Amino acid sequence: MDAADTTVLLDRVREAADELRRGSAEIDSGRAAPDLGYRAVREAGLLTLLVPRESGGEGLSFLDYTKILETLAVGDGATALGLNMHYMAIGSLCETAGSELPAAADRFRTWIFREVVERGRMFTSATAETGSGARIRHIHTTYRRAGDSYILKGTKSSVSPAGIADHYVIAAREEGAAIADEVSHFVVSKDDPGVSFGDPWDAAALRGTRTATMTLSDVVVPRQRLFLGAEGLSLFKLVREPHWTVSGCLGAYLGIAESILRLTVRLLRGDERRRSSPARQADVGRLAVDLRAARALVHAAARLVDEEKGSLEAHTAVHAAKYCIAELAPRLALGAVRICGADALRGPGPLERLLREASLCSVTPAGPEQCLEYVGKSTLGYNMFDTQTSDW
Amino acid sequence: MDAADTTVLLDRVREAADELRRGSAEIDSGRAAPDLGYRAVREAGLLTLLVPRESGGEGLSFLDYTKILETLAVGDGATALGLNMHYMAIGSLCETAGSELPAAADRFRTWIFREVVERGRMFTSATAETGSGARIRHIHTTYRRAGDSYILKGTKSSVSPAGIADHYVIAAREEGAAIADEVSHFVVSKDDPGVSFGDPWDAAALRGTRTATMTLSDVVVPRQRLFLGAEGLSLFKLVREPHWTVSGCLGAYLGIAESILRLTVRLLRGDERRRSSPARQADVGRLAVDLRAARALVHAAARLVDEEKGSLEAHTAVHAAKYCIAELAPRLALGAVRICGADALRGPGPLERLLREASLCSVTPAGPEQCLEYVGKSTLGYNMFDTQTSDW
Amino acid sequence: MDAADTTVLLDRVREAADELRRGSAEIDSGRAAPDLGYRAVREAGLLTLLVPRESGGEGLSFLDYTKILETLAVGDGATALGLNMHYMAIGSLCETAGSELPAAADRFRTWIFREVVERGRMFTSATAETGSGARIRHIHTTYRRAGDSYILKGTKSSVSPAGIADHYVIAAREEGAAIADEVSHFVVSKDDPGVSFGDPWDAAALRGTRTATMTLSDVVVPRQRLFLGAEGLSLFKLVREPHWTVSGCLGAYLGIAESILRLTVRLLRGDERRRSSPARQADVGRLAVDLRAARALVHAAARLVDEEKGSLEAHTAVHAAKYCIAELAPRLALGAVRICGADALRGPGPLERLLREASLCSVTPAGPEQCLEYVGKSTLGYNMFDTQTSDW
Amino acid sequence: MDAADTTVLLDRVREAADELRRGSAEIDSGRAAPDLGYRAVREAGLLTLLVPRESGGEGLSFLDYTKILETLAVGDGATALGLNMHYMAIGSLCETAGSELPAAADRFRTWIFREVVERGRMFTSATAETGSGARIRHIHTTYRRAGDSYILKGTKSSVSPAGIADHYVIAAREEGAAIADEVSHFVVSKDDPGVSFGDPWDAAALRGTRTATMTLSDVVVPRQRLFLGAEGLSLFKLVREPHWTVSGCLGAYLGIAESILRLTVRLLRGDERRRSSPARQADVGRLAVDLRAARALVHAAARLVDEEKGSLEAHTAVHAAKYCIAELAPRLALGAVRICGADALRGPGPLERLLREASLCSVTPAGPEQCLEYVGKSTLGYNMFDTQTSDW
Repeated sequence: MDAADTTVLLDRVREAADELRRGSAEIDSGRAAPDLGYRAVREAGLLTLLVPRESGGEGLSFLDYTKILETLAVGDGATALGLNMHYMAIGSLCETAGSELPAAADRFRTWIFREVVERGRMFTSATAETGSGARIRHIHTTYRRAGDSYILKGTKSSVSPAGIADHYVIAAREEGAAIADEVSHFVVSKDDPGVSFGDPWDAAALRGTRTATMTLSDVVVPRQRLFLGAEGLSLFKLVREPHWTVSGCLGAYLGIAESILRLTVRLLRGDERRRSSPARQADVGRLAVDLRAARALVHAAARLVDEEKGSLEAHTAVHAAKYCIAELAPRLALGAVRICGADALRGPGPLERLLREASLCSVTPAGPEQCLEYVGKSTLGYNMFDTQTSDW
Repeated sequence: MDAADTTVLLDRVREAADELRRGSAEIDSGRAAPDLGYRAVREAGLLTLLVPRESGGEGLSFLDYTKILETLAVGDGATALGLNMHYMAIGSLCETAGSELPAAADRFRTWIFREVVERGRMFTSATAETGSGARIRHIHTTYRRAGDSYILKGTKSSVSPAGIADHYVIAAREEGAAIADEVSHFVVSKDDPGVSFGDPWDAAALRGTRTATMTLSDVVVPRQRLFLGAEGLSLFKLVREPHWTVSGCLGAYLGIAESILRLTVRLLRGDERRRSSPARQADVGRLAVDLRAARALVHAAARLVDEEKGSLEAHTAVHAAKYCIAELAPRLALGAVRICGADALRGPGPLERLLREASLCSVTPAGPEQCLEYVGKSTLGYNMFDTQTSDW
Repeated sequence: MDAADTTVLLDRVREAADELRRGSAEIDSGRAAPDLGYRAVREAGLLTLLVPRESGGEGLSFLDYTKILETLAVGDGATALGLNMHYMAIGSLCETAGSELPAAADRFRTWIFREVVERGRMFTSATAETGSGARIRHIHTTYRRAGDSYILKGTKSSVSPAGIADHYVIAAREEGAAIADEVSHFVVSKDDPGVSFGDPWDAAALRGTRTATMTLSDVVVPRQRLFLGAEGLSLFKLVREPHWTVSGCLGAYLGIAESILRLTVRLLRGDERRRSSPARQADVGRLAVDLRAARALVHAAARLVDEEKGSLEAHTAVHAAKYCIAELAPRLALGAVRICGADALRGPGPLERLLREASLCSVTPAGPEQCLEYVGKSTLGYNMFDTQTSDW
Repeated sequence: MDAADTTVLLDRVREAADELRRGSAEIDSGRAAPDLGYRAVREAGLLTLLVPRESGGEGLSFLDYTKILETLAVGDGATALGLNMHYMAIGSLCETAGSELPAAADRFRTWIFREVVERGRMFTSATAETGSGARIRHIHTTYRRAGDSYILKGTKSSVSPAGIADHYVIAAREEGAAIADEVSHFVVSKDDPGVSFGDPWDAAALRGTRTATMTLSDVVVPRQRLFLGAEGLSLFKLVREPHWTVSGCLGAYLGIAESILRLTVRLLRGDERRRSSPARQADVGRLAVDLRAARALVHAAARLVDEEKGSLEAHTAVHAAKYCIAELAPRLALGAVRICGADALRGPGPLERLLREASLCSVTPAGPEQCLEYVGKSTLGYNMFDTQTSDW
């Protein structure tokens, strides 16, 4: 996009971030209206960021998307993570811009873009199930064909933002097929008969993501809502496109980390005795270096995704970036606690909230161990494109 | 004490710890009765642990005390930290057992032991003030002589367990004296006219310590309650006896750390896939090594306090132990989060609570930076007994 | 430069790196001819990389320079560090390309470029003295005016490559002036009467830099060799242009770090039992993530230098990058030792050499503490452009 | 032993350590006489430390032995590690003091003690082979019966002190038996026909251990030199008595670590500007805390070995201590380098040597990963006494 457009967009994002910041304590405590954060996101027009310009969206690069998510997350990390779910659902489709697709896939793509651009629909992705985690090979949700439709049945364990997103991209495998068989994706709507949601998790943090279980009781899905119009594409898709499953959220993590550093600086600026202590300055310096290194790595990985999507180097880079930031965020939070001292935790407050958020970030999939394994194997020359050996 | 007595005592402590464990979630959330934890401690007879045997107490060594505090803190860390305040107030007096004191000091000591042994009184220590922290040189609470009494005036910022302890050992400096002058300690009772307490802190963790402000509005204290019967002993006392101010709490921290490891092991034992993963085993191994090293250092420091109280080596050891455990606890908690994964933080629960408690532990005075400075200077050959250069 | 030129240049650099790699063990042990490494560098034509194109050089950006230094250092880190001294001496002058200078400065610049481009002269910078370190305020080397010349007197403690570079940019202060006064730079030639060099250091590593003392005994320097034709510019220059003093070497450090990772991978590839161990893969993954983060930060800092040289953000970034890589290199080396096991250290060999080089890198000025202080103060809002408070 | 004896012994150890310190640079460089260090050890009478008092030795506990090894290693780590090999060979036999053995074993034990006490013989243990490492199940050295003797054949890859020790305890398996079968130990003498040694390793460090290959070409060993007079005891022994294989060396590592800290303090004491810097003091404090924690853990583990040899808790403790110190030593060395700055590495010198020694210590078996695995599994409730699953 051109510079003027970018400026306008960034202004909108910053305004939304400011609004989120004002609501973040309420969102965290669960006292806010369920969709407080997401309303701000919709109103700022942030649902079309990756939709191609020719289809009416902003057509942002992955790097620009990552930067916008960071800006938003400085306001409220939970809402930014929730918004990222929208792009986890539609992001790879957006990236097909300009490439020809089979007729059924093309119709599907057109429908999706219209839902987002013309009708302001919010999507999300629902894969994880109890016992399977995010490993798609192990899911139990099934589909069966019934005339021109599919019938879905199962329970997704952690869907966000549950009951707020309009459409849910659901992973399911064919009824009767073996566990390890290939898997398909379907779009289910919030109000489809048979769809219901549990209560949002009263988790230790990030309640603003509005994560809940989602139950599908014989939900009928018309053939047009089969993802890309073909069955069995899911696993293939995941192995080839980890930048969404692994690293879409990185901007949000960066924003949380940036918030922690900003808060630390703000607290120290109000306490000249501590601010002028060489030991504290060195501590702040260490946090700042760590954050800068993580940001540089995240941006470098996002740039690689833009330049050579699907390459081993890009895949390795996003896994490295995910590990780096997931490992950094809680360390940064603890460092901030030490620098700011007990006073900062005397009551519920921003640092206490950020500490909880950072801890939780470090364990969402793809988890640090999984990322490390990817980078280690890739560095040691293993073939990372073999879907058979992938643990997804 | 002999082995049979020890067994009986340990049984009592374990029972109290079990009771605390059952109440710990309620204590943490603030829903429990204010004195729930302390009632269990009183009922188990844990107020006389350090009182000399000839005065009717258990006459425990510092090492044994540390181990008992650890056992208790495995049940509930906040209550153990609160109990430690009782011994911060009377511990150094207990250690004078067997040594002759001037008449006034001897009368004072006798009175204190009777209050604890015969009347079951709980003491605590109140030094910190807003703006001065725990640095006794900078306090603003004053006393003035009025006939055979003293009149105290001022506000202590973080007293625990506020309103629950019966007696409060208050640091105050003479009215009109310069900031840096020497300081005296007085015993004030909960119900003395002019004593009032603020609401307990709604802190991020450790609400069970019942920490609050305490205001003294012209509280009249009879001369018999002047600590050791002499004015101006406070700073001297602090510099010579850091094992209480710095390291009385170490057992409580160890207990919190031990709880984290136990919880991690319990969670993994219920998940064979994770338990059998070499990477998880190595992670658990790392936590266990770190905890063992910290415990060995805490015990070695406590043993030194028993063997050569007041030596530079003992002082350095307690500062080293404090730094080590304060730095370990939050690291251990984060490690546990990573090992256990997001599920462990899905709702408020023990790990989430322990994470908050560990973070808060790392910043209570003497803070890590202060401890490191002590160890560094001592190692580099500075004179650590010079009260003029001490920053207390 | 255009793509074809770049390809040709990169080929030359890679060839030089290969040649250096073959000689690196000999260079390290001190058995090689003193200028073995530098001959390869001269022959590859790497002395004009930053000289503006209109003056006959390659006119590389700081980022491209950093990448080339990395490629070279993968061959031999010591030689790359020695080459960087050439650019520490002339780099900031190269950056004045296109900007008008006073007549004397312009003549000086023209002379320098001709020396490099037409006569193949190698420069270096000589600031540090015993007792002053790299802090220019504290040097003792003096100059005095004598007609149209200056007479220099003093001893520089660590000059590299000593006796190999043709010209030496010498910091000196006016005789009789106070320590803290401003300082000037002069160009002295290897063969000027009164110039002599000590024996190269038999340092623990990086012997290939050929570092030695340099003594100036009443060396006469004509006015045309006063740096930029004006006195007293040195301190000003240093505070404004830390990218050279702080971060010119970063490419060389990256190359050393990259060598360590490559060697680790090579050793594991020859040992399938270790290569297939999940724990080793995770260890390699960790090294790779750390190196990628450091590289991303170094490149981001270099890009900032190119885009907004002299800005607070660029200065902070180069200090952050220096700290990050200096802290990483030895950690990476130790990690490699652990991964590769005792066998890798059974005799003198590449890993053992890289371990020594990495350790030494971590302490060359600007040292980690100094960098951390800069980043910490900058983050906390201090004015970093105040030459009075700078510790240089 | 009683206090007077201890004082005399400690004086002898300190004298030997002083002598070793004076020779350590020469020992390290390989310029010293091959047995320089071991001669000092023999002369100080340090070969009988663990031999029971009733057999003419000092009968030290494992804890006292560990402390003496530390004192010695402060002088020269390599020699202390070499001496430990003597006790790896005879230590577990010494621990049978007071317990009745079968007649053949008893005769063997008596012979060993006489060799040490009356004839001043030095022993060592030789297990590791190329390709098998220290894993006894995978060795290739064989024995076969020939009348009343055994004939041994094979090559041990890293024997120390090679050619200096008088007797070598050799692990071998029966010719023709499967790899995984049980293994026996034999005592071979330096001068037995068929015994030869390779050149000592020119390793990166610890050359003073005099490590070399040892070849056995049909060496005839009389039945009386079969370890404990019975075949097939080796694996059983290793799994039950890891305190020698894993942790005999811990005192030596502690001594190396202690040397690093002492050297750092000495260097800073000569540089008041650095000594008085708060950042350096904190750095020194960190090193001192880490070393104290490691020492406390090593001593606690050694005490457990003395109190409950063979218990799961004692085994876990020695593995934890090994991991802790192996991980600490190189970190401590790097920290010292950072604190002391480049000057400390300007030439070959004590810090440079200690850095190399610390790095090498971190990878000798049992390696850190193996120790971590033991502690992790033990903590997670695995049965660690199952010889079938052991990887030895």
